[in-house]
Amino acid sequence: MWIQRDVELAPRARGFHLVTREIVDGVPELGRLRLGLAHVLLQNTSASLTLNENASPDVRRDFSAWFDRAVPEGAEYWRHTLEGPDDMPAHIKTSLTGSGLTIPVRDGRLALGTWQGIYLCEHRDSGGARRALVTAFGEAAG
Amino acid sequence: MWIQRDVELAPRARGFHLVTREIVDGVPELGRLRLGLAHVLLQNTSASLTLNENASPDVRRDFSAWFDRAVPEGAEYWRHTLEGPDDMPAHIKTSLTGSGLTIPVRDGRLALGTWQGIYLCEHRDSGGARRALVTAFGEAAG
Amino acid sequence: MWIQRDVELAPRARGFHLVTREIVDGVPELGRLRLGLAHVLLQNTSASLTLNENASPDVRRDFSAWFDRAVPEGAEYWRHTLEGPDDMPAHIKTSLTGSGLTIPVRDGRLALGTWQGIYLCEHRDSGGARRALVTAFGEAAG
Repeated sequence: MWIQRDVELAPRARGFHLVTREIVDGVPELGRLRLGLAHVLLQNTSASLTLNENASPDVRRDFSAWFDRAVPEGAEYWRHTLEGPDDMPAHIKTSLTGSGLTIPVRDGRLALGTWQGIYLCEHRDSGGARRALVTAFGEAAG
Repeated sequence: MWIQRDVELAPRARGFHLVTREIVDGVPELGRLRLGLAHVLLQNTSASLTLNENASPDVRRDFSAWFDRAVPEGAEYWRHTLEGPDDMPAHIKTSLTGSGLTIPVRDGRLALGTWQGIYLCEHRDSGGARRALVTAFGEAAG
Repeated sequence: MWIQRDVELAPRARGFHLVTREIVDGVPELGRLRLGLAHVLLQNTSASLTLNENASPDVRRDFSAWFDRAVPEGAEYWRHTLEGPDDMPAHIKTSLTGSGLTIPVRDGRLALGTWQGIYLCEHRDSGGARRALVTAFGEAAG
Protein backbone atom coordinates (compact mmCIF):
# COMPACT_ATOMS: atom_id res chain seq x y z
CA MET A 1 0.00 0.00 0.00
CA TRP A 2 1.45 3.35 -1.12
CA ILE A 3 0.31 6.85 -0.21
CA GLN A 4 1.63 10.13 -1.56
CA ARG A 5 0.20 13.47 -0.57
CA ASP A 6 1.14 17.12 -0.89
CA VAL A 7 0.52 18.86 2.43
CA GLU A 8 0.69 22.62 2.56
CA LEU A 9 1.87 23.94 5.91
CA ALA A 10 0.34 27.24 6.93
CA PRO A 11 2.62 30.32 7.03
CA ARG A 12 4.40 30.82 10.32
CA ALA A 13 6.65 33.40 11.92
CA ARG A 14 10.38 32.80 11.95
CA GLY A 15 11.11 30.19 14.60
CA PHE A 16 10.51 26.57 15.50
CA HIS A 17 6.94 25.23 15.43
CA LEU A 18 5.24 21.94 16.25
CA VAL A 19 3.48 20.62 13.14
CA THR A 20 2.92 16.95 13.95
CA ARG A 21 -0.84 17.35 13.99
CA GLU A 22 -0.95 19.39 10.79
CA ILE A 23 1.02 16.73 8.92
CA VAL A 24 -0.96 13.78 10.28
CA ASP A 25 -4.25 15.51 9.48
CA GLY A 26 -3.04 16.08 5.93
CA VAL A 27 -2.62 12.34 5.31
CA PRO A 28 -5.72 10.59 6.67
CA GLU A 29 -4.75 7.35 4.86
CA LEU A 30 -1.95 6.86 7.41
CA GLY A 31 -4.59 5.41 9.72
CA ARG A 32 -4.92 2.41 7.42
CA LEU A 33 -1.26 1.37 7.69
CA ARG A 34 -0.71 -1.42 10.17
CA LEU A 35 3.09 -1.38 9.80
CA GLY A 36 5.19 0.85 7.60
CA LEU A 37 7.19 4.02 7.15
CA ALA A 38 6.23 7.61 6.41
CA HIS A 39 8.65 10.01 4.77
CA VAL A 40 8.19 13.77 4.79
CA LEU A 41 10.18 16.01 2.46
CA LEU A 42 10.02 19.76 2.89
CA GLN A 43 10.39 21.03 -0.66
CA ASN A 44 11.99 24.33 0.26
CA THR A 45 15.56 25.40 0.94
CA SER A 46 15.10 28.02 3.66
CA ALA A 47 12.93 26.03 6.07
CA SER A 48 13.47 22.53 7.40
CA LEU A 49 12.19 19.69 9.58
CA THR A 50 13.50 18.05 12.75
CA LEU A 51 12.24 15.87 15.58
CA ASN A 52 12.49 17.27 19.08
CA GLU A 53 10.74 17.91 22.38
CA ASN A 54 6.99 18.36 21.98
CA ALA A 55 6.13 19.97 25.33
CA SER A 56 7.86 23.16 26.44
CA PRO A 57 7.62 26.28 24.25
CA ASP A 58 10.85 27.41 25.92
CA VAL A 59 12.70 24.62 24.16
CA ARG A 60 11.56 25.92 20.79
CA ARG A 61 12.47 29.49 21.75
CA ASP A 62 15.94 28.30 22.78
CA PHE A 63 16.33 26.64 19.38
CA SER A 64 15.90 30.08 17.81
CA ALA A 65 18.34 31.64 20.26
CA TRP A 66 21.06 29.13 19.48
CA PHE A 67 20.63 28.95 15.70
CA ASP A 68 20.50 32.74 15.32
CA ARG A 69 23.81 33.02 17.17
CA ALA A 70 25.48 30.07 15.44
CA VAL A 71 24.59 31.31 11.94
CA PRO A 72 24.61 35.09 12.20
CA GLU A 73 23.02 37.53 9.80
CA GLY A 74 25.23 40.25 8.38
CA ALA A 75 28.53 38.37 8.71
CA GLU A 76 31.26 39.77 6.48
CA TYR A 77 31.81 36.42 4.77
CA TRP A 78 28.38 36.11 3.16
CA ARG A 79 28.38 36.69 -0.61
CA HIS A 80 24.79 35.64 -1.32
CA THR A 81 23.03 38.67 0.17
CA LEU A 82 20.69 39.85 -2.58
CA GLU A 83 17.65 38.00 -1.19
CA GLY A 84 17.93 39.67 2.21
CA PRO A 85 20.03 39.17 5.35
CA ASP A 86 17.92 36.25 6.60
CA ASP A 87 18.28 34.22 3.38
CA MET A 88 21.79 32.81 3.44
CA PRO A 89 21.65 31.91 7.16
CA ALA A 90 18.34 30.17 6.36
CA HIS A 91 20.06 27.93 3.80
CA ILE A 92 22.77 26.91 6.28
CA LYS A 93 20.25 26.27 9.08
CA THR A 94 18.23 24.14 6.66
CA SER A 95 21.16 21.83 6.01
CA LEU A 96 22.07 21.64 9.71
CA THR A 97 18.62 20.32 10.60
CA GLY A 98 17.68 18.61 7.34
CA SER A 99 14.86 18.70 4.79
CA GLY A 100 13.46 15.21 5.32
CA LEU A 101 12.25 12.90 8.05
CA THR A 102 11.47 9.20 7.97
CA ILE A 103 9.11 8.03 10.71
CA PRO A 104 7.91 4.48 11.44
CA VAL A 105 4.18 3.77 11.40
CA ARG A 106 2.60 1.23 13.73
CA ASP A 107 -1.12 0.52 13.98
CA GLY A 108 -2.06 3.54 11.94
CA ARG A 109 -0.03 6.06 13.94
CA LEU A 110 3.40 7.65 13.73
CA ALA A 111 5.57 5.66 16.14
CA LEU A 112 7.31 8.62 17.74
CA GLY A 113 8.69 8.63 21.26
CA THR A 114 6.47 10.05 23.99
CA TRP A 115 8.24 13.40 23.93
CA GLN A 116 8.95 13.63 20.21
CA GLY A 117 7.19 15.95 17.81
CA ILE A 118 7.84 17.26 14.31
CA TYR A 119 9.23 20.79 14.20
CA LEU A 120 8.84 23.03 11.20
CA CYS A 121 12.00 25.16 11.37
CA GLU A 122 11.03 28.41 9.67
CA HIS A 123 14.26 30.30 9.02
CA ARG A 124 12.90 33.24 7.00
CA ASP A 125 11.22 36.33 8.41
CA SER A 126 8.36 35.93 5.92
CA GLY A 127 8.65 32.43 4.50
CA GLY A 128 4.98 32.01 3.64
CA ALA A 129 3.31 28.62 3.27
CA ARG A 130 5.66 25.63 3.02
CA ARG A 131 5.25 22.48 0.95
CA ALA A 132 5.61 19.03 2.50
CA LEU A 133 5.46 15.94 0.31
CA VAL A 134 4.47 12.90 2.38
CA THR A 135 5.18 9.41 1.01
CA ALA A 136 4.09 6.44 3.10
CA PHE A 137 3.96 2.73 2.44
CA GLY A 138 3.62 -0.56 4.24
CA GLU A 139 1.13 -3.25 5.11
CA ALA A 140 -2.51 -2.26 5.25
CA ALA A 141 -4.60 -3.16 8.27
CA GLY A 142 -6.76 -6.23 7.58
CA MET B 1 8.97 -8.80 4.13
CA TRP B 2 8.59 -6.36 7.02
CA ILE B 3 10.41 -6.34 10.35
CA GLN B 4 9.81 -4.02 13.29
CA ARG B 5 11.68 -4.35 16.55
CA ASP B 6 12.20 -2.29 19.68
CA VAL B 7 15.87 -2.38 20.62
CA GLU B 8 16.91 -1.03 24.00
CA LEU B 9 20.39 0.45 23.98
CA ALA B 10 22.28 0.02 27.26
CA PRO B 11 22.96 3.15 29.32
CA ARG B 12 26.18 4.95 28.41
CA ALA B 13 28.20 7.88 29.67
CA ARG B 14 27.84 11.22 27.96
CA GLY B 15 29.72 11.05 24.68
CA PHE B 16 29.75 9.32 21.31
CA HIS B 17 29.59 5.51 21.21
CA LEU B 18 29.70 2.85 18.51
CA VAL B 19 26.49 0.80 18.64
CA THR B 20 26.40 -0.90 15.23
CA ARG B 21 26.79 -4.35 16.76
CA GLU B 22 24.19 -3.75 19.46
CA ILE B 23 21.61 -2.69 16.89
CA VAL B 24 22.34 -5.53 14.45
CA ASP B 25 22.19 -8.09 17.26
CA GLY B 26 18.82 -6.71 18.29
CA VAL B 27 17.27 -7.48 14.91
CA PRO B 28 18.36 -10.99 13.92
CA GLU B 29 15.77 -11.07 11.10
CA LEU B 30 17.94 -8.61 9.14
CA GLY B 31 19.98 -11.62 8.06
CA ARG B 32 17.05 -12.83 5.98
CA LEU B 33 16.82 -9.69 3.83
CA ARG B 34 18.52 -10.09 0.48
CA LEU B 35 17.91 -6.48 -0.56
CA GLY B 36 16.19 -3.74 1.37
CA LEU B 37 16.41 -0.84 3.78
CA ALA B 38 16.62 -0.60 7.54
CA HIS B 39 15.45 2.48 9.40
CA VAL B 40 16.42 3.23 12.99
CA LEU B 41 14.58 5.87 15.00
CA LEU B 42 15.93 6.90 18.38
CA GLN B 43 12.77 7.71 20.33
CA ASN B 44 14.36 10.26 22.62
CA THR B 45 15.05 13.98 22.32
CA SER B 46 18.34 14.32 24.19
CA ALA B 47 20.33 11.60 22.44
CA SER B 48 20.73 10.98 18.72
CA LEU B 49 22.24 8.83 15.97
CA THR B 50 24.82 9.50 13.27
CA LEU B 51 27.11 7.58 10.95
CA ASN B 52 30.82 8.20 11.27
CA GLU B 53 34.29 6.69 11.56
CA ASN B 54 34.26 3.30 13.25
CA ALA B 55 37.94 2.93 14.14
CA SER B 56 39.69 5.57 16.25
CA PRO B 57 38.35 6.35 19.74
CA ASP B 58 40.04 9.75 19.36
CA VAL B 59 37.52 10.67 16.66
CA ARG B 60 34.66 10.03 19.06
CA ARG B 61 36.39 12.01 21.81
CA ASP B 62 36.87 14.91 19.39
CA PHE B 63 33.15 14.81 18.61
CA SER B 64 32.48 15.51 22.28
CA ALA B 65 35.07 18.28 22.34
CA TRP B 66 33.53 20.08 19.38
CA PHE B 67 29.87 19.67 20.31
CA ASP B 68 30.42 20.75 23.91
CA ARG B 69 32.06 23.96 22.67
CA ALA B 70 29.55 24.63 19.88
CA VAL B 71 26.52 24.25 22.17
CA PRO B 72 27.69 25.45 25.58
CA GLU B 73 26.07 24.76 28.91
CA GLY B 74 25.21 27.74 31.07
CA ALA B 75 24.86 30.26 28.24
CA GLU B 76 22.86 33.35 29.21
CA TYR B 77 20.35 32.82 26.41
CA TRP B 78 18.94 29.49 27.61
CA ARG B 79 15.44 29.73 29.08
CA HIS B 80 14.73 26.00 29.41
CA THR B 81 17.04 25.26 32.35
CA LEU B 82 14.82 23.46 34.86
CA GLU B 83 15.89 19.97 33.75
CA GLY B 84 19.57 20.72 34.33
CA PRO B 85 22.36 22.52 32.46
CA ASP B 86 22.99 19.57 30.11
CA ASP B 87 19.36 19.31 28.95
CA MET B 88 18.84 22.19 26.54
CA PRO B 89 22.24 21.72 24.82
CA ALA B 90 21.27 18.05 24.46
CA HIS B 91 18.14 19.00 22.52
CA ILE B 92 20.11 21.20 20.12
CA LYS B 93 22.83 18.57 19.61
CA THR B 94 20.10 16.02 18.90
CA SER B 95 18.71 18.08 16.03
CA LEU B 96 22.19 18.82 14.65
CA THR B 97 22.97 15.12 14.29
CA GLY B 98 19.46 13.72 13.84
CA SER B 99 17.18 11.14 15.42
CA GLY B 100 16.94 8.68 12.55
CA LEU B 101 19.11 6.75 10.11
CA THR B 102 18.18 4.84 6.97
CA ILE B 103 20.71 2.21 5.95
CA PRO B 104 20.63 -0.07 2.89
CA VAL B 105 20.65 -3.83 3.42
CA ARG B 106 22.40 -6.19 1.00
CA ASP B 107 22.72 -9.94 1.42
CA GLY B 108 21.52 -9.84 5.01
CA ARG B 109 23.95 -7.16 6.17
CA LEU B 110 23.90 -3.39 6.63
CA ALA B 111 25.61 -2.00 3.52
CA LEU B 112 27.76 0.57 5.29
CA GLY B 113 31.08 1.83 3.98
CA THR B 114 34.21 0.13 5.29
CA TRP B 115 34.85 2.87 7.83
CA GLN B 116 31.26 3.67 8.75
CA GLY B 117 29.63 2.77 12.03
CA ILE B 118 26.51 3.86 13.90
CA TYR B 119 27.17 6.29 16.74
CA LEU B 120 24.84 6.69 19.67
CA CYS B 121 25.31 10.35 20.59
CA GLU B 122 24.51 10.50 24.30
CA HIS B 123 24.15 14.16 25.19
CA ARG B 124 22.99 13.83 28.81
CA ASP B 125 25.20 13.19 31.82
CA SER B 126 22.88 10.40 32.97
CA GLY B 127 20.66 9.58 30.02
CA GLY B 128 19.95 5.98 30.99
CA ALA B 129 18.88 3.34 28.50
CA ARG B 130 17.75 4.61 25.09
CA ARG B 131 15.00 3.25 22.84
CA ALA B 132 15.65 2.49 19.19
CA LEU B 133 12.80 1.40 16.94
CA VAL B 134 14.12 -0.53 13.96
CA THR B 135 11.89 -0.93 10.89
CA ALA B 136 13.26 -2.95 7.97
CA PHE B 137 11.73 -4.23 4.79
CA GLY B 138 12.71 -5.63 1.43
CA GLU B 139 13.05 -8.86 -0.48
CA ALA B 140 13.67 -12.01 1.52
CA ALA B 141 16.50 -14.31 0.58
CA GLY B 142 15.20 -17.33 -1.40
CA MET C 1 10.24 -3.17 -7.78
CA TRP C 2 13.65 -2.78 -6.13
CA ILE C 3 16.77 -1.13 -7.53
CA GLN C 4 20.21 -1.01 -5.95
CA ARG C 5 23.17 0.61 -7.65
CA ASP C 6 26.67 1.73 -6.72
CA VAL C 7 27.32 5.16 -8.17
CA GLU C 8 30.84 6.52 -8.11
CA LEU C 9 30.95 10.29 -7.84
CA ALA C 10 33.89 11.90 -9.64
CA PRO C 11 36.62 13.52 -7.48
CA ARG C 12 35.97 17.14 -6.61
CA ALA C 13 37.76 19.97 -4.88
CA ARG C 14 36.94 20.72 -1.26
CA GLY C 15 33.60 22.50 -1.19
CA PHE C 16 29.92 22.03 -1.93
CA HIS C 17 28.91 20.67 -5.35
CA LEU C 18 25.64 19.97 -7.15
CA VAL C 19 25.48 16.26 -8.05
CA THR C 20 21.77 15.70 -8.74
CA ARG C 21 22.37 14.95 -12.41
CA GLU C 22 25.31 12.64 -11.72
CA ILE C 23 23.25 10.56 -9.31
CA VAL C 24 20.15 10.39 -11.51
CA ASP C 25 22.25 9.40 -14.52
CA GLY C 26 23.82 6.62 -12.48
CA VAL C 27 20.44 4.96 -11.85
CA PRO C 28 18.55 4.90 -15.17
CA GLU C 29 15.99 2.45 -13.72
CA LEU C 30 14.55 5.33 -11.64
CA GLY C 31 12.64 6.33 -14.76
CA ARG C 32 10.52 3.18 -14.44
CA LEU C 33 9.20 4.00 -10.94
CA ARG C 34 5.76 5.53 -10.98
CA LEU C 35 5.67 6.12 -7.23
CA GLY C 36 8.33 5.32 -4.68
CA LEU C 37 11.34 6.42 -2.69
CA ALA C 38 15.03 6.63 -3.48
CA HIS C 39 17.67 6.48 -0.77
CA VAL C 40 21.26 7.58 -1.28
CA LEU C 41 23.98 6.64 1.20
CA LEU C 42 27.40 8.19 0.87
CA GLN C 43 29.69 5.42 2.11
CA ASN C 44 32.42 7.72 3.38
CA THR C 45 32.99 9.53 6.66
CA SER C 46 34.66 12.74 5.47
CA ALA C 47 32.17 13.79 2.79
CA SER C 48 28.40 14.04 3.04
CA LEU C 49 25.12 14.83 1.29
CA THR C 50 22.50 17.52 1.78
CA LEU C 51 19.63 19.13 -0.11
CA ASN C 52 19.85 22.84 -0.76
CA GLU C 53 19.54 25.65 -3.30
CA ASN C 54 20.36 24.53 -6.83
CA ALA C 55 20.88 27.89 -8.52
CA SER C 56 23.44 30.34 -7.18
CA PRO C 57 27.11 29.26 -6.92
CA ASP C 58 27.47 31.95 -4.24
CA VAL C 59 25.23 29.90 -1.95
CA ARG C 60 27.59 26.94 -2.23
CA ARG C 61 30.62 29.17 -1.65
CA ASP C 62 28.94 30.58 1.47
CA PHE C 63 28.39 27.04 2.73
CA SER C 64 32.18 26.57 2.66
CA ALA C 65 32.75 29.90 4.37
CA TRP C 66 30.42 29.06 7.25
CA PHE C 67 31.44 25.43 7.78
CA ASP C 68 35.16 26.24 7.70
CA ARG C 69 34.63 28.84 10.43
CA ALA C 70 32.28 26.72 12.54
CA VAL C 71 34.58 23.69 12.54
CA PRO C 72 38.09 25.12 12.42
CA GLU C 73 41.26 23.32 11.45
CA GLY C 74 44.12 23.41 13.91
CA ALA C 75 42.03 23.91 17.05
CA GLU C 76 43.85 22.99 20.23
CA TYR C 77 41.18 20.47 21.26
CA TRP C 78 41.63 18.07 18.33
CA ARG C 79 43.36 14.81 19.28
CA HIS C 80 42.81 12.94 15.99
CA THR C 81 45.33 14.86 13.86
CA LEU C 82 47.46 12.14 12.26
CA GLU C 83 45.45 12.08 9.01
CA GLY C 84 45.94 15.80 8.39
CA PRO C 85 44.39 19.03 9.66
CA ASP C 86 41.37 18.73 7.34
CA ASP C 87 40.41 15.23 8.53
CA MET C 88 38.82 15.68 11.93
CA PRO C 89 36.82 18.78 10.89
CA ALA C 90 35.65 16.70 7.91
CA HIS C 91 34.20 14.06 10.24
CA ILE C 92 32.28 16.66 12.25
CA LYS C 93 30.97 18.42 9.13
CA THR C 94 29.85 15.04 7.81
CA SER C 95 27.66 14.41 10.85
CA LEU C 96 26.28 17.97 10.80
CA THR C 97 24.98 17.54 7.25
CA GLY C 98 24.42 13.77 7.19
CA SER C 99 25.49 10.77 5.10
CA GLY C 100 22.12 9.80 3.67
CA LEU C 101 19.15 11.29 1.84
CA THR C 102 15.72 9.84 1.17
CA ILE C 103 13.91 11.42 -1.79
CA PRO C 104 10.40 10.68 -3.08
CA VAL C 105 9.99 9.50 -6.66
CA ARG C 106 6.96 10.45 -8.74
CA ASP C 107 6.43 9.54 -12.39
CA GLY C 108 10.01 8.40 -12.82
CA ARG C 109 11.64 11.53 -11.41
CA LEU C 110 13.00 12.68 -8.07
CA ALA C 111 10.21 14.78 -6.54
CA LEU C 112 12.41 17.61 -5.31
CA GLY C 113 11.24 21.17 -4.86
CA THR C 114 11.88 23.59 -7.72
CA TRP C 115 14.96 25.03 -6.03
CA GLN C 116 16.29 21.86 -4.42
CA GLY C 117 19.35 19.97 -5.57
CA ILE C 118 21.63 17.33 -4.07
CA TYR C 119 24.93 18.69 -2.75
CA LEU C 120 28.00 16.56 -2.40
CA CYS C 121 29.76 18.15 0.57
CA GLU C 122 33.44 17.40 0.02
CA HIS C 123 35.21 18.19 3.27
CA ARG C 124 38.71 16.94 2.42
CA ASP C 125 41.33 18.79 0.39
CA SER C 126 41.91 15.68 -1.73
CA GLY C 127 39.02 13.36 -1.05
CA GLY C 128 39.12 11.53 -4.37
CA ALA C 129 36.14 9.72 -5.85
CA ARG C 130 33.22 9.10 -3.47
CA ARG C 131 30.90 6.10 -3.30
CA ALA C 132 27.12 6.52 -3.28
CA LEU C 133 24.88 3.50 -2.83
CA VAL C 134 21.42 4.19 -4.25
CA THR C 135 18.50 1.99 -3.16
CA ALA C 136 15.10 2.70 -4.70
CA PHE C 137 11.79 0.88 -4.59
CA GLY C 138 8.14 1.43 -5.33
CA GLU C 139 5.49 0.76 -7.92
CA ALA C 140 6.62 0.31 -11.50
CA ALA C 141 4.96 2.28 -14.26
CA GLY C 142 2.40 0.14 -16.11
